[in-house]
Amino acid sequence: MASTSICTSDLTSITVRGRDLVNDLIGELSFTEMLYFLSCGRKPDAAQAKVLDACLVTIMEHGINPSTIVARLIADTVPEEPQVAIAAGLLGIGGVFAGTSEQCAAILVELKKQGEGAVRETAERLLASGQPIPGFGHLHHKPDDPRSPRLFAVAERAGIKQDYTSLLRKLGAAIDAAKGRHITINATGAIGALMLDIEVPVAAIRCFSVVARSAGLTAHLLEEKSNPAARTIWRESRNAVPYVAP
Amino acid sequence: MASTSICTSDLTSITVRGRDLVNDLIGELSFTEMLYFLSCGRKPDAAQAKVLDACLVTIMEHGINPSTIVARLIADTVPEEPQVAIAAGLLGIGGVFAGTSEQCAAILVELKKQGEGAVRETAERLLASGQPIPGFGHLHHKPDDPRSPRLFAVAERAGIKQDYTSLLRKLGAAIDAAKGRHITINATGAIGALMLDIEVPVAAIRCFSVVARSAGLTAHLLEEKSNPAARTIWRESRNAVPYVAP
Amino acid sequence: MASTSICTSDLTSITVRGRDLVNDLIGELSFTEMLYFLSCGRKPDAAQAKVLDACLVTIMEHGINPSTIVARLIADTVPEEPQVAIAAGLLGIGGVFAGTSEQCAAILVELKKQGEGAVRETAERLLASGQPIPGFGHLHHKPDDPRSPRLFAVAERAGIKQDYTSLLRKLGAAIDAAKGRHITINATGAIGALMLDIEVPVAAIRCFSVVARSAGLTAHLLEEKSNPAARTIWRESRNAVPYVAP
Amino acid sequence: MASTSICTSDLTSITVRGRDLVNDLIGELSFTEMLYFLSCGRKPDAAQAKVLDACLVTIMEHGINPSTIVARLIADTVPEEPQVAIAAGLLGIGGVFAGTSEQCAAILVELKKQGEGAVRETAERLLASGQPIPGFGHLHHKPDDPRSPRLFAVAERAGIKQDYTSLLRKLGAAIDAAKGRHITINATGAIGALMLDIEVPVAAIRCFSVVARSAGLTAHLLEEKSNPAARTIWRESRNAVPYVAP
Repeated sequence: MASTSICTSDLTSITVRGRDLVNDLIGELSFTEMLYFLSCGRKPDAAQAKVLDACLVTIMEHGINPSTIVARLIADTVPEEPQVAIAAGLLGIGGVFAGTSEQCAAILVELKKQGEGAVRETAERLLASGQPIPGFGHLHHKPDDPRSPRLFAVAERAGIKQDYTSLLRKLGAAIDAAKGRHITINATGAIGALMLDIEVPVAAIRCFSVVARSAGLTAHLLEEKSNPAARTIWRESRNAVPYVAP
Repeated sequence: MASTSICTSDLTSITVRGRDLVNDLIGELSFTEMLYFLSCGRKPDAAQAKVLDACLVTIMEHGINPSTIVARLIADTVPEEPQVAIAAGLLGIGGVFAGTSEQCAAILVELKKQGEGAVRETAERLLASGQPIPGFGHLHHKPDDPRSPRLFAVAERAGIKQDYTSLLRKLGAAIDAAKGRHITINATGAIGALMLDIEVPVAAIRCFSVVARSAGLTAHLLEEKSNPAARTIWRESRNAVPYVAP
Repeated sequence: MASTSICTSDLTSITVRGRDLVNDLIGELSFTEMLYFLSCGRKPDAAQAKVLDACLVTIMEHGINPSTIVARLIADTVPEEPQVAIAAGLLGIGGVFAGTSEQCAAILVELKKQGEGAVRETAERLLASGQPIPGFGHLHHKPDDPRSPRLFAVAERAGIKQDYTSLLRKLGAAIDAAKGRHITINATGAIGALMLDIEVPVAAIRCFSVVARSAGLTAHLLEEKSNPAARTIWRESRNAVPYVAP
Repeated sequence: MASTSICTSDLTSITVRGRDLVNDLIGELSFTEMLYFLSCGRKPDAAQAKVLDACLVTIMEHGINPSTIVARLIADTVPEEPQVAIAAGLLGIGGVFAGTSEQCAAILVELKKQGEGAVRETAERLLASGQPIPGFGHLHHKPDDPRSPRLFAVAERAGIKQDYTSLLRKLGAAIDAAKGRHITINATGAIGALMLDIEVPVAAIRCFSVVARSAGLTAHLLEEKSNPAARTIWRESRNAVPYVAP
């Protein structure tokens, strides 16, 4: 029989994962701790919360991109229901752009099972596939994605265990060696490893990205109200995609 | 000409609202501080962040409701793209259920302009409308929504200014007097006032609810994977809405 | 108790609004007739179906606009689930751009109740509001929206009753007289009146637009596969909305 | 350079795929013909349009299912923007339930390339996979999906070529032989073959399902207004998924 262990309520109380929302959680947990608690079923320690905060801050905002363009256009046509614009923007947080943290984490989980002896072989197999390697390389940040070393430093300072981060760095070194040149570990790779090190399940990783991006979209919707860009985007898009007779 | 002041990047750096993301924000700000910074254009002080955390924790999770039912059903049919299920669930954070914080805040902003002398008249006008008063009353929590006093206590402990909270309580007292019985200030009312007291713009309030709810939906999607309810919901809904010949 | 009169099925048959789907509807009704039958609860006559077809064909496609831009961007990021791109595009068929048929129909329904004597007063009241009049005027088509006379001609040829179309024309003449210059009846106005004349309920009008637009979005998704525009739209949008330090 | 060949307009005309919308299409094409014209770039002949109508009518409506439940729940919370409810419902037309026409068509396209000699081997390979075979079997309709023979009869009566339909029937016979018992060709299989026989590209098949389902959702939204089920669905879902302490 179906059941849920997330939340229930009665006349005078609300219970979330067995805790009293009012007395145990409101005012006691940060947003990030509550997100972790709700998703993982246990409270994070301070170091885990610190690292999760850093990951969420890192991916929250990406400027004018498909997701924010979509949110701004929808906000212009459905101005009274901002959740519709946010939802529309989030639809674009798909596997193509946002799935790489999760995919990188899946590679690391597999590698952990196989042991470090499999690092070189994995590196070679990934390169041989000819596909982009999840968590490696970056179109705009060269030679290195500046976010990854910062994230690793935050994790080190926080003092979390670094099993997967360490494995990711070894995989990176092996990829560099096999390729004969340096390929950066990008922010999505670093986040994939860090999420595992703070014991977030792989299936939660993309959802956490979506949560972080909902915050970024909020900023764009507010800016769109005071400094609208939607009509400009529409006009420029129409100009950039002219009609050609079939 | 359209422009944005949210985010830009170049080969080696990412700039968010004039700050260097890597060195000034990652590892320095919590999710909640970054959400506030991105949306309001300035960092919150510690008290404001504390209160915003409490508000977000309060509204994050509501158990099995339209939004989580929708997310679970969509996750069952589009399992590989969890952002689609989250977005679908968020579409339901509409004015009917989630707009009351914003509407209550709008009433308080107006009341602040008019001065405290207008409290009684406003209370009477709201009651006379015959409509539910945004921020007041609760279907399930009686006689009082237990979240509101807790939120007020967190705010008091944090030491934020309480202009709007105070106004809300006065409005509540006037409503009780005019009605001749007690009507609870519900969590959405408390949050509407607190958001104003921490200087969040009215237009951001519903967006912040959406962000919080995206975290709650994440927990439901993860639970759906291990303890699925979607097919049960489908079957029970079909049974509960039988076909009757036209 | 909740119930539905739309559809049920058993081992060997499917019943839709009391009819046997397999033997009475498949191969017997066109898409448009089935849409009408499902929505209105009765089959349209040939004239009504003809006019509904003309209305749906009219609004199906609008080139590169917010809805198709959104659909193309989402298709680029979630390529395996085309329904997500279509749904994203449809979110933008909101009141701002697509609600005018429905709003114009609502004006006509009210006017019908009041009688033709109210036409002049209604025209003056609508003009005095200073707002755009639903169903009148067009940004790009001047002096006249070429679709409206064509739609009226189709309706006349089909031989439907023209109570609302006639009322709309009278309202148009009164608006011209009060304004002192000609304002075109646009396609959304013509469609609002025609939908009423073919006995489509007001609440169905916007839904029918959504159905028609889903067909237009399909064409854009298919073209996006062979001749992609999403990355161009992204790049041009980013260029058109430059970062300005706050 | 990006371009589009779908639609353009100027002051006095609208051009769709090289044709004048007003004079060549409105009043001349049915919805179904226009959908085909827009998507395939050429007008269908009468037989192709007849078969496409039959396919669209077949899949338009499925009663109370995840898609209609979602649409009804969202309509209850965002009542003023019906496109949001329709879009939410369409998000669930995913690969799991709605991808089988497309997948069956892809199998037939491959089989056509290989020639009829590959039918038996394909049947055995599909059975050996242990997975459901796209286009075959049905949970509720036993022993045969009644829609498929009806669709084949419509196609035969219309006189379209039946290359893929014929191949599908041969594949069905080979599956029956290899399995040792009859497995029905379901409606999604029949539609996959028929779409190919009327020269609809494989990539359009799922989009056409989405278009058809948008019509079905319209009927549910209208019924929800007069005979609401959303609150019942919510209550029954909550009862069916009780809280169990973690």
